[in-house]
Amino acid sequence: MDRLIEAITNVQNPSVVGLDPTEALVPPQVVASFAEEVRDSVDSPEELPAAQLAVAYFEFNRTIIDAVADIVPAVKPQIAMYEALGPAGVDVYTMTCEYAAQQGLYVLGDIKRGDIGSTAAAYAHHLSGVGADAAAGDDAADNGESIIFDPWHEDAVTVNPYLGTDGITPFVDAAVASDKDIFVLVRTSNPSSSELQMLDLADGTKVYEHVADLVEGWGAETRGQHGYSRVGAVVGATHPEEGRALRKRMPHTFFLVPGYGAQGGTAQDVAGMFDETGSGAIVNSSRGIIGAWKKSGRYSESMSADQALELVAESARQAAIDMRDALRFAVYR
Amino acid sequence: MDRLIEAITNVQNPSVVGLDPTEALVPPQVVASFAEEVRDSVDSPEELPAAQLAVAYFEFNRTIIDAVADIVPAVKPQIAMYEALGPAGVDVYTMTCEYAAQQGLYVLGDIKRGDIGSTAAAYAHHLSGVGADAAAGDDAADNGESIIFDPWHEDAVTVNPYLGTDGITPFVDAAVASDKDIFVLVRTSNPSSSELQMLDLADGTKVYEHVADLVEGWGAETRGQHGYSRVGAVVGATHPEEGRALRKRMPHTFFLVPGYGAQGGTAQDVAGMFDETGSGAIVNSSRGIIGAWKKSGRYSESMSADQALELVAESARQAAIDMRDALRFAVYR
Repeated sequence: MDRLIEAITNVQNPSVVGLDPTEALVPPQVVASFAEEVRDSVDSPEELPAAQLAVAYFEFNRTIIDAVADIVPAVKPQIAMYEALGPAGVDVYTMTCEYAAQQGLYVLGDIKRGDIGSTAAAYAHHLSGVGADAAAGDDAADNGESIIFDPWHEDAVTVNPYLGTDGITPFVDAAVASDKDIFVLVRTSNPSSSELQMLDLADGTKVYEHVADLVEGWGAETRGQHGYSRVGAVVGATHPEEGRALRKRMPHTFFLVPGYGAQGGTAQDVAGMFDETGSGAIVNSSRGIIGAWKKSGRYSESMSADQALELVAESARQAAIDMRDALRFAVYR
Repeated sequence: MDRLIEAITNVQNPSVVGLDPTEALVPPQVVASFAEEVRDSVDSPEELPAAQLAVAYFEFNRTIIDAVADIVPAVKPQIAMYEALGPAGVDVYTMTCEYAAQQGLYVLGDIKRGDIGSTAAAYAHHLSGVGADAAAGDDAADNGESIIFDPWHEDAVTVNPYLGTDGITPFVDAAVASDKDIFVLVRTSNPSSSELQMLDLADGTKVYEHVADLVEGWGAETRGQHGYSRVGAVVGATHPEEGRALRKRMPHTFFLVPGYGAQGGTAQDVAGMFDETGSGAIVNSSRGIIGAWKKSGRYSESMSADQALELVAESARQAAIDMRDALRFAVYR
């Protein structure tokens, strides 16, 4: 987790911008502006809407990334929004990750994968890339060269714990080998998260506390120079009391805190999820940043695509600054 | 779940072939045979191994599908194996799903997605496809036409329950709207599944039993004419006693049973997961079918790619027949 912690320190801003585009969050004139460009790229007319939206998502993301790259340490693209468009969307997810990485940002892929051991090992290629050994017939492999192809461009991914240790170990191994990190779901920000996570266990703890103990253990051998392991935890901003208790329970586990802003979490709510030095957590906001243009009062349908993107950029940057300053005030006291 | 149940009845075979290719499961001469074909399709040399393997995976899958399409009702591609190759692999995943569907097979996408409500709604497009409303600027949308683009070609997907009801509802809604199904992880087949799923709750039940009750409830409004809902459960073949108990506990929930064969489950182990009419479950085998050629004793490195694929086809078909007959003997008594 050292790379993320140092990136946060460099900009004095423990926040991450969620790149979760939806049709409603991209100005319609931006989508429309790609109608001609994609027309020749698809095999059949019914693919057009998805292809057009995918290209628009990338332009939108690039605008956001350019607007915030000097003030935030990281971005968190949510792969679901891209998978919703099919393979063309997945392409744009990887292009977004690559572009963000090129701008010096730490890229946290919110993929929430989780499976049994042998299958988790396949998902772990999100972190480790594809080695030259992947194609037995390849000349380069025959020559003993080690070509690594990293199609995903993620510095970390989120992982689901429901399948237990053998579904986690492959990700930890890949993280160690590639100087990357993972974040395991512990206490999610959504309303019905309590149905499973808050159940009382016979030993007096709750399910999420048991998962928290597993997570702290999974990371034990991977602590970096700042004291945090490569195995982080997802702890929703909407659960401030539990977050505060988890901070004590998991002293070597870095937190990814979703649920700030649009989902209701405030800077005060998340303050207890940081350690006494102001480290230990990074707070995500998605709609609050990338959808800020809709609340600016300055949008008009008559704007050109370029004008709309300019408004997106200005609004996102201001919202990111406001969030940074709110977190600085609440955390770096 | 009616379509799946009728497909099973048609071939009198409650089994599904897992299409989980790995480099080790595809004969090397098949991979090598695509070296020339992919050379011009990639932007940089390091992409070659993944691109070559992706094309080989599709050829391998098509061979398996052709070999078993008349004797099995369904296939279950595991998306992790494809994601391991990056976007080129995801393309091949969708091509595999599409080809299987064209051969009349029910396609069960093993994607194990799970997220908070608004994000789960994005993942649910795996089932619902992309509507014409996806691109606001599209002419067809302006004309009020309803073009649905289905990039994934899945009849069902697997879903992770850790986030609770609001992460499930969007999938259920999409399944109902599209005449499709979902399967929620309840008791997985892997060794460390017990770490979380077998925990004792304060009320005397176990975590997986609580999840089972949630799953039965999530499907309650979606029961089909055969008595089973659109919300199935994943119950590992490696837990025969729990599977038998779950069969009673979840009378309207169809089971997807992984872990047969290579993972250790036998036809006797899974028999208790069927209902008294021999319905109620479908059993998956992946390596046992698609890797049967490696255990045939007939493979030789000197074979041509076509000869190797012929061996793959014959071995897979025989293994699928053996599994069908073992299940018929154990279940349809």
